[in-house]
Amino acid sequence: MSKVRIGIVGAGRIGKLHAENLRQFKDVEIRAISDIFADQARGWAAQNGIERVTEDYRDILSDPDIDAILICSPTDTHVDIIKEAANAGKHIFCEKPISLDLSKTVQVLQWVKQAGIKFQLGFNRRFDHNMSRVNELLKAGKAGELHILKITSRDPAAPPESYIRSSGGLFADMAIHDFDLARFLTGSDVEEVYVQGAVRVDPVFAECGDIDTAVTTLKFKNGVLGVVVNSRQAHYYDQRVEAFGSAGTIAIQNDTPSTVEWFSSAGGVRRETPLYFFLERYKEAYVKEMRCFVDAVLNDEQVPVDVNDGYQAELIAFAAGISLREKRPVLLAEAEARLAQEV
Amino acid sequence: MSKVRIGIVGAGRIGKLHAENLRQFKDVEIRAISDIFADQARGWAAQNGIERVTEDYRDILSDPDIDAILICSPTDTHVDIIKEAANAGKHIFCEKPISLDLSKTVQVLQWVKQAGIKFQLGFNRRFDHNMSRVNELLKAGKAGELHILKITSRDPAAPPESYIRSSGGLFADMAIHDFDLARFLTGSDVEEVYVQGAVRVDPVFAECGDIDTAVTTLKFKNGVLGVVVNSRQAHYYDQRVEAFGSAGTIAIQNDTPSTVEWFSSAGGVRRETPLYFFLERYKEAYVKEMRCFVDAVLNDEQVPVDVNDGYQAELIAFAAGISLREKRPVLLAEAEARLAQEV
Amino acid sequence: MSKVRIGIVGAGRIGKLHAENLRQFKDVEIRAISDIFADQARGWAAQNGIERVTEDYRDILSDPDIDAILICSPTDTHVDIIKEAANAGKHIFCEKPISLDLSKTVQVLQWVKQAGIKFQLGFNRRFDHNMSRVNELLKAGKAGELHILKITSRDPAAPPESYIRSSGGLFADMAIHDFDLARFLTGSDVEEVYVQGAVRVDPVFAECGDIDTAVTTLKFKNGVLGVVVNSRQAHYYDQRVEAFGSAGTIAIQNDTPSTVEWFSSAGGVRRETPLYFFLERYKEAYVKEMRCFVDAVLNDEQVPVDVNDGYQAELIAFAAGISLREKRPVLLAEAEARLAQEV
Amino acid sequence: MSKVRIGIVGAGRIGKLHAENLRQFKDVEIRAISDIFADQARGWAAQNGIERVTEDYRDILSDPDIDAILICSPTDTHVDIIKEAANAGKHIFCEKPISLDLSKTVQVLQWVKQAGIKFQLGFNRRFDHNMSRVNELLKAGKAGELHILKITSRDPAAPPESYIRSSGGLFADMAIHDFDLARFLTGSDVEEVYVQGAVRVDPVFAECGDIDTAVTTLKFKNGVLGVVVNSRQAHYYDQRVEAFGSAGTIAIQNDTPSTVEWFSSAGGVRRETPLYFFLERYKEAYVKEMRCFVDAVLNDEQVPVDVNDGYQAELIAFAAGISLREKRPVLLAEAEARLAQEV
Repeated sequence: MSKVRIGIVGAGRIGKLHAENLRQFKDVEIRAISDIFADQARGWAAQNGIERVTEDYRDILSDPDIDAILICSPTDTHVDIIKEAANAGKHIFCEKPISLDLSKTVQVLQWVKQAGIKFQLGFNRRFDHNMSRVNELLKAGKAGELHILKITSRDPAAPPESYIRSSGGLFADMAIHDFDLARFLTGSDVEEVYVQGAVRVDPVFAECGDIDTAVTTLKFKNGVLGVVVNSRQAHYYDQRVEAFGSAGTIAIQNDTPSTVEWFSSAGGVRRETPLYFFLERYKEAYVKEMRCFVDAVLNDEQVPVDVNDGYQAELIAFAAGISLREKRPVLLAEAEARLAQEV
Repeated sequence: MSKVRIGIVGAGRIGKLHAENLRQFKDVEIRAISDIFADQARGWAAQNGIERVTEDYRDILSDPDIDAILICSPTDTHVDIIKEAANAGKHIFCEKPISLDLSKTVQVLQWVKQAGIKFQLGFNRRFDHNMSRVNELLKAGKAGELHILKITSRDPAAPPESYIRSSGGLFADMAIHDFDLARFLTGSDVEEVYVQGAVRVDPVFAECGDIDTAVTTLKFKNGVLGVVVNSRQAHYYDQRVEAFGSAGTIAIQNDTPSTVEWFSSAGGVRRETPLYFFLERYKEAYVKEMRCFVDAVLNDEQVPVDVNDGYQAELIAFAAGISLREKRPVLLAEAEARLAQEV
Repeated sequence: MSKVRIGIVGAGRIGKLHAENLRQFKDVEIRAISDIFADQARGWAAQNGIERVTEDYRDILSDPDIDAILICSPTDTHVDIIKEAANAGKHIFCEKPISLDLSKTVQVLQWVKQAGIKFQLGFNRRFDHNMSRVNELLKAGKAGELHILKITSRDPAAPPESYIRSSGGLFADMAIHDFDLARFLTGSDVEEVYVQGAVRVDPVFAECGDIDTAVTTLKFKNGVLGVVVNSRQAHYYDQRVEAFGSAGTIAIQNDTPSTVEWFSSAGGVRRETPLYFFLERYKEAYVKEMRCFVDAVLNDEQVPVDVNDGYQAELIAFAAGISLREKRPVLLAEAEARLAQEV
Repeated sequence: MSKVRIGIVGAGRIGKLHAENLRQFKDVEIRAISDIFADQARGWAAQNGIERVTEDYRDILSDPDIDAILICSPTDTHVDIIKEAANAGKHIFCEKPISLDLSKTVQVLQWVKQAGIKFQLGFNRRFDHNMSRVNELLKAGKAGELHILKITSRDPAAPPESYIRSSGGLFADMAIHDFDLARFLTGSDVEEVYVQGAVRVDPVFAECGDIDTAVTTLKFKNGVLGVVVNSRQAHYYDQRVEAFGSAGTIAIQNDTPSTVEWFSSAGGVRRETPLYFFLERYKEAYVKEMRCFVDAVLNDEQVPVDVNDGYQAELIAFAAGISLREKRPVLLAEAEARLAQEV
């Protein structure tokens, strides 16, 4: 295979972003894009050299000249599309989460395995220059044996109420990235989770049965302790990691628009406020994750974030939800058992 | 009163440090120092202009020309000395903790109240230039309403086994400083505590029935969430705080011996390793806490860290111990009730 | 005009870079590229959708469907190409310097003026995120009235001897960027220049009649003092600015590959070494300068760096050369007078 | 000798500071202090355990029980006191500069040599934790062979006009510290100096025949290039050094009151403004320089900053003055020749 022929399902913000990034690759051809509001995407598609725009994603799945698809449609459509795409033998890149219903994610695990396709999940942070540098140093043993992993992950501002209601809650929607990052950096699955959550930012979260602030303790199977600190409102995008081990500490700061530091006799010493928006902050990471997916398909290599990574992160979020409701630490084994009963 | 006349109980490292700091104050007279190994302290005392050295601390308590005492003797002697000093009407500065037996600390609370004396506890970090600046900014509302407080507190190296065995454990010996700092910065008592602890540094901690690594979640009565991250071995003295609120974030870094940053073509870019030792790191804080104690006695003002602050920090440590053993979150109200039963 | 139709002269490293950046713009069409080694560029051109590759730049100049050209050929070809392009009425983007012979640059000034074309010079640093942020803050008065401008500009490693011999020397080849940046940030022409130069890096510079290390003092017409510090070998690309004024100071640091800071018990605290290579460091600045050139042509607006900016920077370099040889401060007025005599 | 018995000439701000620092040393006895306004110093002296206060410094010089003196009186009294003290065989610590009249400093050189006494000059910055760390790393070869030394030295605010008039001007009063620091760090004398100076802060400097802003280029005898950047008004005390060499770069930042960094949604990211005042900034350096002087006297060791260091710094300032007036680079050899003629 010298070119990957790609179809994109969903022409929203993230679908368009991936398309524009894929255009830079000389070994990729974007054959088609689907969106239920296809008409709204036609102008953009023409400008970006995408000839075919359709309302029905099935047109993409049935196209024999398409090797791989990106699933960038709303979360509640993921499972059906994955099922059909797997049946059609298309390789899949899917935005996170696979599903808000963990029992369905379990099914996806099986379908993907049976179909023998590549399935990459959109945990973009693994490809970030800062995060991947931490990982590189950890894997090179620069911190010795890892003891404690701290992740700080705070959004700039709370989403609108409509989003909150359908988001799946702080864990499934937001902290899921951190749970994946934690598994990535520790190289271990999680054994136990405990949540202390609160509504501190806006009472609307309570009205939606959600929280906006959380401190989540993770115990990993390899003995590492972890803590994830989340908030829905930091006024900028606060994404930091600190890995502490037997022989060192590795930490990253937020990215800023410039390195300027200025003193003003009127206002003291200032630095740049970190970047505000995730698309700006992870701009290059989105390119890299696409590059990796394309390479995996082209060269029949392993994808860097697979379907089990998606399941594990969702499982931690599921257990975190139990911990929050029942105010106690929850073993992931217990959460899985409960899940099996439900199914 | 134009001068405070002070007696020091205990001529170990910290007793000597306080004495040398007090010597700089023109409104202080050090009248005497006691130590069971008095002879070993005589040379040092003479050099520092302290005329009287005695083996028996009761000589100090019975001296009518002494206004206040510093208790710098081993922890297991604190309660008895406090009781006698309170009876003698001496003002007291006492090193932390008051006692490893929380039920005795409850008694100390009462004695001090009844005696109407000043009682300051040696939580030196409140006086640190970095910590007190965080507090100042928080109280000035620079972070808005506080949401999450993160404290990182890691010792440079594990103490010897003999110390570990009599230390009272990680919470009573080490994290107690962080628990006090948390109350200081949040301006709130703690409602609930949950501990995830581990032995990661050295198996000797397990042999002593202790841990060396902990992530402790705190829920404060005012709704703030807190997390304290401890380790017995960071290779330097790692003491940082990050306060996150509705309108901002306030954070401090470790102090370093100089501001030097150097690039070497042989070894990349380097900065100074943070200070290693607590006496060096908190050098100025020790002077300030003495200054505050002397001022409180001289001007009949409130001490900045009182006996209840000591009790509350010990109570959190006590509840943390229950949480560790019983693997569940523990309300401080429950811990107090259990304590009442024990007594 | 809805699209700018561009021809590129020179398919070396920088010509290719500009072409690949221009491809991202939807309002640009690259019509042709010329190179005396045209055959070597054909593969690359095909991959990048450039249909026409020619050995003779005159094919580009004579194409009526080309609006603007980029001159990316060797410095000694610039003047002739500019003359012919101006006659052909093409807008010009030209890499720096215009010429190593300042008297020819004077002629270019006139040709461009007479032809009424856009002429933008490739002083890419003005478009850098750090440098342009300094400029923005200065222009917003954040430093008050500017007093002293410091520029540090050091290459990672000395170029090969062949390059040194034809480079025009440290001032015309390297410091010229700093001289332009100084004029940009101060908003003023230079009145006087003094150079203290040395050969410290490699004796080959002396053999070529050049220096590798220089401290250049600038006095600006608006009274600001400036100092430019250059070296040919810093082991990384060291590009910093510090602007000091009546009410503040604005400074930038080098960009790094990540924000990682790590401590290792084996090697102390480390940070990332700044980026090494100018193409990496100024990656985004190259895109922005193209964007500005395209906008100027499309909307008939002023270019952000014009032909006089090129002349002024070369004039400072010329005066710096005199100062170095004659070991005294040199007024730019004197340098211009001497130039007039030579011509 | 087990104790150094010291007399202090001048009970102004700096005399008192040294006295209070010396009190901390157990091997020092302050025997007496003189001041023409002796009465104003008596209260302070009593509080600090200095029994003898006299109006006449000769009382100190004639006291056989005094080993060493500190000269902290106004600059115009230094030479006479040094002469008499040298005759009396007292060791001398003298505040900078020795004299504003360089020809007299030449005489002091001889007297000190003939008397065989210790003579330490008050170049306090050599003892600063940041500066001495730079020196240590340089001497350890961490930057390879030194190429360029940059010193930034800016006062917080302009002194009053009366001070300016008698100060000796920017070079003799202020930059002299930087000239000494430059010699200290390069380990070399200066060969040539060039000044570009200006009045940018306040026209009062012009009225006093002085400047307030300067960029001074130094060429060292060992081939290193240096640049010193001075201003009388930075709103804080700006004291930085950057040493660039064949194998690395070593730089320091200003000290700040704390490591706090805070983000406020109202005001962006802030850091602490550097310390404002030199007594605060160099607090520990003043203690260390006294410690070194006392050690040199006690152990008959070399002083760390001797009379020739004072002369050399004054000579650079003298040459800088010529350069400023005559608008050209000046060789120190020429300045010395001119001095010999004057004398």
